Amino acid sequence: MLRTHQLGELNAEHIGQTVTVAGWVARRRDHGGVAFVDLRDASGFAQVVVRDEKDFDPLRNEFVLRVTGTVEKRPAGNENPNLPSGEIELITDTVEVLNTADPLPFQIDEHVEVGEEARLRHRYLDLRRPQPAKIMRLRSDVNRAARDLLHEEGFIEVETPTLTRSTPEGARDFLVPARLAPGSWYALPQSPQLFKQLLQVGGVERYFQIARCYRDEDFRADRQPEFTQLDIEASFVEEDDVIALGEKIIASLWSLIGVEISTPIRRMTYAEAMEKYGSDKPDLRFGLELTDLTEYFRNTPFRVFQSDYVGAVVMPGGASQPRRTLDAWQEWAKQRGAKGLAYVLIQEDGSLGGPVAKNITDEEKAGLAEATGAQPGDCIFFGAGTAKDARALLGAARVEIGHRVGLIKAPGEVPIEEQDWAFVWIVDAPLFEPAADAVASGDVAVGSGSWTAVHHAFTSPKPEFLDTFDTDPGSALAYAYDIVCNGNEIGGGSIRIHRQDVQKRVFGVMGLSEEEADEKFGFLLEGFKYGAPPHGGIAFGWDRIVALLAGTDSIRDVIAFPKTGNGFDPLTAAPAPITPQQRKEAGVDAKPEPKKDEVAPESE
Amino acid sequence: MLRTHQLGELNAEHIGQTVTVAGWVARRRDHGGVAFVDLRDASGFAQVVVRDEKDFDPLRNEFVLRVTGTVEKRPAGNENPNLPSGEIELITDTVEVLNTADPLPFQIDEHVEVGEEARLRHRYLDLRRPQPAKIMRLRSDVNRAARDLLHEEGFIEVETPTLTRSTPEGARDFLVPARLAPGSWYALPQSPQLFKQLLQVGGVERYFQIARCYRDEDFRADRQPEFTQLDIEASFVEEDDVIALGEKIIASLWSLIGVEISTPIRRMTYAEAMEKYGSDKPDLRFGLELTDLTEYFRNTPFRVFQSDYVGAVVMPGGASQPRRTLDAWQEWAKQRGAKGLAYVLIQEDGSLGGPVAKNITDEEKAGLAEATGAQPGDCIFFGAGTAKDARALLGAARVEIGHRVGLIKAPGEVPIEEQDWAFVWIVDAPLFEPAADAVASGDVAVGSGSWTAVHHAFTSPKPEFLDTFDTDPGSALAYAYDIVCNGNEIGGGSIRIHRQDVQKRVFGVMGLSEEEADEKFGFLLEGFKYGAPPHGGIAFGWDRIVALLAGTDSIRDVIAFPKTGNGFDPLTAAPAPITPQQRKEAGVDAKPEPKKDEVAPESE
Repeated sequence: MLRTHQLGELNAEHIGQTVTVAGWVARRRDHGGVAFVDLRDASGFAQVVVRDEKDFDPLRNEFVLRVTGTVEKRPAGNENPNLPSGEIELITDTVEVLNTADPLPFQIDEHVEVGEEARLRHRYLDLRRPQPAKIMRLRSDVNRAARDLLHEEGFIEVETPTLTRSTPEGARDFLVPARLAPGSWYALPQSPQLFKQLLQVGGVERYFQIARCYRDEDFRADRQPEFTQLDIEASFVEEDDVIALGEKIIASLWSLIGVEISTPIRRMTYAEAMEKYGSDKPDLRFGLELTDLTEYFRNTPFRVFQSDYVGAVVMPGGASQPRRTLDAWQEWAKQRGAKGLAYVLIQEDGSLGGPVAKNITDEEKAGLAEATGAQPGDCIFFGAGTAKDARALLGAARVEIGHRVGLIKAPGEVPIEEQDWAFVWIVDAPLFEPAADAVASGDVAVGSGSWTAVHHAFTSPKPEFLDTFDTDPGSALAYAYDIVCNGNEIGGGSIRIHRQDVQKRVFGVMGLSEEEADEKFGFLLEGFKYGAPPHGGIAFGWDRIVALLAGTDSIRDVIAFPKTGNGFDPLTAAPAPITPQQRKEAGVDAKPEPKKDEVAPESE
Repeated sequence: MLRTHQLGELNAEHIGQTVTVAGWVARRRDHGGVAFVDLRDASGFAQVVVRDEKDFDPLRNEFVLRVTGTVEKRPAGNENPNLPSGEIELITDTVEVLNTADPLPFQIDEHVEVGEEARLRHRYLDLRRPQPAKIMRLRSDVNRAARDLLHEEGFIEVETPTLTRSTPEGARDFLVPARLAPGSWYALPQSPQLFKQLLQVGGVERYFQIARCYRDEDFRADRQPEFTQLDIEASFVEEDDVIALGEKIIASLWSLIGVEISTPIRRMTYAEAMEKYGSDKPDLRFGLELTDLTEYFRNTPFRVFQSDYVGAVVMPGGASQPRRTLDAWQEWAKQRGAKGLAYVLIQEDGSLGGPVAKNITDEEKAGLAEATGAQPGDCIFFGAGTAKDARALLGAARVEIGHRVGLIKAPGEVPIEEQDWAFVWIVDAPLFEPAADAVASGDVAVGSGSWTAVHHAFTSPKPEFLDTFDTDPGSALAYAYDIVCNGNEIGGGSIRIHRQDVQKRVFGVMGLSEEEADEKFGFLLEGFKYGAPPHGGIAFGWDRIVALLAGTDSIRDVIAFPKTGNGFDPLTAAPAPITPQQRKEAGVDAKPEPKKDEVAPESE
């Protein structure tokens, strides 16, 4: 080793010892003939005293030094109680410059002023900052804690392939040309879903993997083309078993930041979540439940409220919002595809203000505060239309209100120790949704049917819908469970279909012909022929979980080398053009063999 | 859970208890009115007694059952001492068929008669066999042991990107079209090399990752297009530090199979390995060192031996090989690109036989046995030509001899407990090799120079060659170390270049113009500007290591879902043609932007 000690471990115990350390010049102060250098390594800082001008004169920020010297007690009054090494300083004998540093594009500091693009372009500098460095260590600890727990529960880690077959699972696949089979392509997996199910068919019984997954999605804020999930699957389990295991994992992870999660975590049906919170990932750190006013306005003369559904959410103290804020809410709603956001202001004297109040009857006005639980000084926002759309709008308004009135804090707004944590399992989601809805929300519908799977095509119907899910797809509930934390879906899973006949019927509802099903999922259906056990599992969104634990809003902060929103890597400038030779060799333009059966492997 | 107990845990302690178990029908024997079913789960087997004909009649092999019954002591004489549950049997109350199974393409048995292709096509059945199942558990244990050790040594796990920039490292990259930047491509990484170095620039100091890597190579036996390595990098380390860490890992892994590795592991220079064993991955389980006879034959009249180098290897007892075996050796040599394999047979009376003996002088004949250490009854094989080619031939002959005379056993030939283990570090390899040699051995030379890197372009010269490596590339030694086990290179690493000027000079030797170096590795060179610390690391070939520990010759046996030699996956039939829509969407045929600088990311 080029050093005998790490800087962060030096303290008063080392006084009098000669040590060799190495690290980066974080700061240097010259005091006439002597320089004080804050030297930094991964473990922390120590103050280095350089007395020879020819030694300290050339030093610049972020030079890499190797220093041998004697640990001494700092002169009285010069201690730094914020530093483990704050009582001591290192009086140098020799200073060796291991490497120099050009002037930096930005300073290595707690707070940087440059934009994210510049930070990511020089991510190796960004990672020297305290917070990013701490997050990298946290992520490593998170991986370790989850694996330790799963090993103790008898799970084995299996690495599944990433050059595989294109099997649509709700998003587009990334494709990889196969040079040795010109014109044929591999796909990068959207998840290890099919492989982990086949491992259950293979009798592995308890599988896990921290798996890299790939989805070629259109730009959405805070999505990455490659992301990580903790992937789990087990045989002979029921919903309660997977949920109990999931809770152990969650409790273990949050204990890393000193938070004790009480289990069991509450469960809520999908229907209740939509009704009360307008979301399948409700933020339960605060109340402000939606009120269903459909009956209340059954005979209203107000055209806007003459609809399938009318609901409301109350903004405490919202009556005092100035006109321009109320106008801004209209813009906010329009950006979400709504026409606007109707509202009523309840004045301190109990009278109602705002345009809606002019359009509803006196009777409707009189009972409104009671019906919604609103108090004088509150604002009531309304949503009307289809239950789905109106609830989605009100659910979004509810979260926005939560932030504006200070009921919830975004990560970073408060120190992580002051963050509230509200977990909930969402169960009994619908098995299918209209395919048009899936496409509208940016997914790729599998199959050409009018229905597509809410979770994915391998999710089992709950037992009571096994006979009817294909004759009445809209009513069938899925044997699925999603775990939500502070309004973020951080994991989801289901009991899977293990019977070939059921799987084929589900494909049928999704409009996959038998031929298409065979083409896309034939190997899974084939596997199900030979004694597939009942099985289920879960996958946790690892990037989001680490972001929550790190107290950051952006998953880019918890990825070592993230990409920006459109899949661009500012560090390497990938993706990039390829050479004509690369293109030719990759076989991109070769005509594929007409049938897959003819792409036979060479004998070995 | 659908069960209360696992089958493998049932034993005499459970006698009298009512239990519920689940598993696969491994075997069924009918004895008039009663059937004995060997039920199997991941933990083991137990015997289930079914007394009701309507229960056992439908049962077939690999049906999945859930059985509730009472554990009873087997009748005296019926115990099976080979099974943990061999003292007991389960008398069934209820038998539930959880799933049926069609007749299997092959039986789930210790020994299968079908070919590998069929096994891989139905890998989920193959994995139910005892040995493959055991290997999956072993691999999980191996991952766990390595991670535990590295965490204890203060290393943190960092996940590096797999959609990145094409950066040739000795093989072809797999490419991925970027739909959001049509005409531009990502590449899958051949290793995390550049990222792990940039993590050192970023002050991470101790990094590891069990990383998926990708190389688009031509068919070579036992290579996979995607493979796994344990990837390690650390700052402020020297060669001895990385070697010591590597030995801890090796010792920890081999202890999993009950083998104690004594450390330190011996080290051998590359030059010595080539001279004595004709290989940079010598199998040291046996001797049979090569003898350099160049001086000995300095004035020989035998034209074949009038060459740069003449060497020999002795085959003990080889004089008794029949003529057709000796002829087969010639074929063997020709397949390796040699003209043949000259030999001399030392008869029991000390006289020399074989064609070579007729061509050399009496004096040469007289001293030959002594010069080579051959005994009466031995065969001496010769290699003549360039030292490189002749040694490679003799080195291969040496290993072949080792197998033929029983000095070494291939994995699988003997039980793993009887396997010998010979480890060696190969150090002081050349920094560069002629580019033509690299291309001949199937690698892609980086740059257009006449020299290319033996390890890779980021390997530091040893300090004593820092001044001369570019004026005399052929003499420079690399600061590199490879770990070899039983003739397999199972890991390799180096102290890296951390100075921008040195890195540029290395690129220069390799014929990379400054512009090309910038285009390919600009982000690394940029990073080196800002205080890169001295650093080094190692990567272990995880698939090969697990194969050695599992006692198998083929890495396909230790991969859950492997591909065959040409990159074909018999399970999913990947790679496969894509649809015209997929092709269009992926932007495969779009013209890329003319310059990378113009491929700017959208603002977020």
